[in-house]
Amino acid sequence: MSATVHHLGGHRIGNSQPSLDPMLALVANDLNLVNAVILDRMQSNIPLIPELAGHLIAGRGKRMRPMLTLASAQLLGYSGARHHKLAACVEFIHTATLLHDDVVDSSDLRRGKRTANIIWGNPASVLVGDFLFSRSFELMVEDGSLKVLKILSNASAVIAEGEVNQLTAVRRLDISEERYLDIIGAKTAALFAAACRIAAVVAERGESDEAALDAYGRNLGIAFQLVDDAIDYVSDASTMGKDAGNDFREGKMTLPVILAYARGNEEARGFWKEAISGRRIADADFAEAVRLVQSSHAVDDTLARARHYGQRAIDALGGFACGAAKEAMVEAVEFAVARAY
Amino acid sequence: MSATVHHLGGHRIGNSQPSLDPMLALVANDLNLVNAVILDRMQSNIPLIPELAGHLIAGRGKRMRPMLTLASAQLLGYSGARHHKLAACVEFIHTATLLHDDVVDSSDLRRGKRTANIIWGNPASVLVGDFLFSRSFELMVEDGSLKVLKILSNASAVIAEGEVNQLTAVRRLDISEERYLDIIGAKTAALFAAACRIAAVVAERGESDEAALDAYGRNLGIAFQLVDDAIDYVSDASTMGKDAGNDFREGKMTLPVILAYARGNEEARGFWKEAISGRRIADADFAEAVRLVQSSHAVDDTLARARHYGQRAIDALGGFACGAAKEAMVEAVEFAVARAY
Repeated sequence: MSATVHHLGGHRIGNSQPSLDPMLALVANDLNLVNAVILDRMQSNIPLIPELAGHLIAGRGKRMRPMLTLASAQLLGYSGARHHKLAACVEFIHTATLLHDDVVDSSDLRRGKRTANIIWGNPASVLVGDFLFSRSFELMVEDGSLKVLKILSNASAVIAEGEVNQLTAVRRLDISEERYLDIIGAKTAALFAAACRIAAVVAERGESDEAALDAYGRNLGIAFQLVDDAIDYVSDASTMGKDAGNDFREGKMTLPVILAYARGNEEARGFWKEAISGRRIADADFAEAVRLVQSSHAVDDTLARARHYGQRAIDALGGFACGAAKEAMVEAVEFAVARAY
Repeated sequence: MSATVHHLGGHRIGNSQPSLDPMLALVANDLNLVNAVILDRMQSNIPLIPELAGHLIAGRGKRMRPMLTLASAQLLGYSGARHHKLAACVEFIHTATLLHDDVVDSSDLRRGKRTANIIWGNPASVLVGDFLFSRSFELMVEDGSLKVLKILSNASAVIAEGEVNQLTAVRRLDISEERYLDIIGAKTAALFAAACRIAAVVAERGESDEAALDAYGRNLGIAFQLVDDAIDYVSDASTMGKDAGNDFREGKMTLPVILAYARGNEEARGFWKEAISGRRIADADFAEAVRLVQSSHAVDDTLARARHYGQRAIDALGGFACGAAKEAMVEAVEFAVARAY
């Protein structure tokens, strides 16, 4: 019997664009139940809470992280219902970090809509984020698994550390690719990993399956963030739902900049010093930045790095039986790394 | 045998000022161990985290909430060590809310020191607050009691709701005393109550002792906040460690304002409308506000309300045996309500 080998971009018939549709179809029923939990548990006697939370939660988010919990549970043949509440926890944690991120970055647009901090102000975004975060822990406690609590409380602390790490890396051209990977591993990939791992916990599989799903989620999360960071230098608000050039204007040290700076001649490096320090961030400067990251192949190679982690995510699933769940999880990786094209 | 009756201000010999010293003496050894946990667990590979957290945590806070956990444990004769880690959890939750409060209120002074948001900026305060909050849950999970997790995750959600409730009550003269009590019951008293209740959980006492300690903490917390809110209209930075008049300038609807407005004549009401809307908040306006809350007995009666809740806190301890722990807990209440004199 020959092995089933999944290669990025290699397994589908024809050249159809990879999409999240198979995963959406796979988890549609479960996701409705998760959405019901989310809507139910974001309620409060304080009207501003569901109003503000609903703006983001009921919005156009992909529900990527809860879908990963649901798909992982299906991969393992789990037939219970605990993962619905826990997938809602994961989305609450994610939403809380988005609310706080938008305050930290002074963002005004997310998923094509005005951000909560712009509509209701920073104080409300900070406090409703705190509420969602606390509510997430209440939900976990209701589930009652100390193992799940450990995984998600640890992920939450790691996310916060990653956010602080990123904050202290802003406007600093000496940031290395290694430090960048530490940052995105913490701020993004930790929750992807936890979202997948908890499915193995509720399905009561062993440490080996937990570790495999953790690796799938972690590598997918890194790939996902790498592509996001590449898109900031190639896309615009209409395709991305957030402004292109945001990272540039905020002086964020993402991989496209790290590579373009490392590969740049003296003139290019001079430009980056001015730009990342915040002295050259006009539209014309951003156009120059795009030109430099393209000509140095920094965006192409950021996407190549994303494919590397994407392939690792796919290979982490090697031990699981083929079927609709696995196919959908593989295509989700292909979708994640193909978004920039 | 006659009953032992504790009345506020009535049980000490002579007229010595009540203080926290008996409670500090009672829990000194335990508190050293709690401080060791705090210092150990606020560490991180990201240097800004212990730096910023240490500014507030290692500062001059009274450690009121962890002391309540420790004193409650002694009241119950608990001889284990679980309460050290859990008292650190309580302090982490409190510190996280302080960091976020100072961002929400744009405060520049706390406990006589410049606030973290002034020194390191709002983004760092938001994110380090998130870290401490997550770390607190990690510590709770290490302890492993789902009952403690439920109490503290619920308290955290209630605190956040209370903060949002307070935010939406700002600059609104139609806020009632009832709504004000809801707010301070959530934002302040819920954590006092939880800090005391978890001692009964680790000591494995029944629901009746849990409820009694919850009531002690809750009423003490309400009294504590009432006095804090009164002090904002009588004190200055040198005695309080925070600027007097902060609540006034922020348009916060605290009980002194609610009472002074309800009791005011047309001229006084006109003043409050201007002031609470933010149009009259100069130093001379604050002096006028102080004159009005004093002449309407609004401060005196806020303090009388505090004594009411203080007495309820003391009476909640009625079922526990007399001894050093109970004496210290009674005097802590007397200290809390006497601070304004």
